[in-house]
Amino acid sequence: MPITDIDRLVQMLAKLPGLGPRSARRAALHLLTHRDLVLQPLAEALARAAQSVRTCGLCHNLDTSDPCAICANPERDKGVLCVVEQVADLWAIERTASYKGSYHVLGGVLAPLDGVGPDDLAIDDLVERAKSAEVREVILATSATVDGRTTAHYIADRLAGADVDVSALARGIPVGGELDYLDDGTLSSALKDRRAV
Amino acid sequence: MPITDIDRLVQMLAKLPGLGPRSARRAALHLLTHRDLVLQPLAEALARAAQSVRTCGLCHNLDTSDPCAICANPERDKGVLCVVEQVADLWAIERTASYKGSYHVLGGVLAPLDGVGPDDLAIDDLVERAKSAEVREVILATSATVDGRTTAHYIADRLAGADVDVSALARGIPVGGELDYLDDGTLSSALKDRRAV
Repeated sequence: MPITDIDRLVQMLAKLPGLGPRSARRAALHLLTHRDLVLQPLAEALARAAQSVRTCGLCHNLDTSDPCAICANPERDKGVLCVVEQVADLWAIERTASYKGSYHVLGGVLAPLDGVGPDDLAIDDLVERAKSAEVREVILATSATVDGRTTAHYIADRLAGADVDVSALARGIPVGGELDYLDDGTLSSALKDRRAV
Repeated sequence: MPITDIDRLVQMLAKLPGLGPRSARRAALHLLTHRDLVLQPLAEALARAAQSVRTCGLCHNLDTSDPCAICANPERDKGVLCVVEQVADLWAIERTASYKGSYHVLGGVLAPLDGVGPDDLAIDDLVERAKSAEVREVILATSATVDGRTTAHYIADRLAGADVDVSALARGIPVGGELDYLDDGTLSSALKDRRAV
């Protein structure tokens, strides 16, 4: 049987994270049965995003402008850089609406076994930015995974020469977390980093 | 904050079944960071499918040709009609490669509470097709849900006048099913419809 345009659409949808072959078929049928309301607007949104979205030359965020809206915003503190692995992490921090500094997106974590070294990430860039007189603090907001922590350590070493404070996200009990269900590492971090009330 | 092209892409992706807001964001980032390999091909597949896919005038299947490849295939038995709710069900039966007849896609099930009556489904159509001299058997392959069974009963009633055999999918133990875990309805159906070995 020749591959039809429907098969091709299913194949392409199955490449999205979170969609397996079965859900890609469902999504394709949904698109084809709701052309005006779903397929057409999605096709337009894709085309427009492909055309307008670029990587910010300063912080490597994705946005329709370069520098991105955050770097261009005069109300954001240019003296604090929050270092994140991915744009998704930047979005997560933005959703909290509790951070008013700038960002630096690494584009991944150090993973020697997968062949990802310091040159594959935006680390030289970060060191350069950190050395500018403007920057006072670098917050390492990588994931609390082995790779994320290794990356944070490496960056902290590289920043040793620059005149900036280096900090990392607090480790402890997540909001709503029940002690009984927490892993030992989290609980011992929370104990060690206890704070006065 | 104004809605950017990225927000718009996330919104449109979130309309796909199986993608919530969080997975839509992940999918959007995946698309934007893999433009040549994922975004562009998906945009092209959407455009091509939107342009070429149509509903088959005979069986209401979706295909790039009208009549669809199944209706146009001379090797498919035009004397047997398998009645399914959705194109997804037709695809599911085709994947078994164990059915060589034709199909009839209803486009849904009777759901009076949701305002779906017989006129909203391709039932008149089906009765018309069943009355043609060519058709010998109609297989009711609706879901084993309340709505699916109600629809099957309604169609069976409507077909009473036509000179065709009406059958339904067998009910029983699914392949790999353990008796202990089956619901009572399935088990009692399997007992009632037991067959000689």
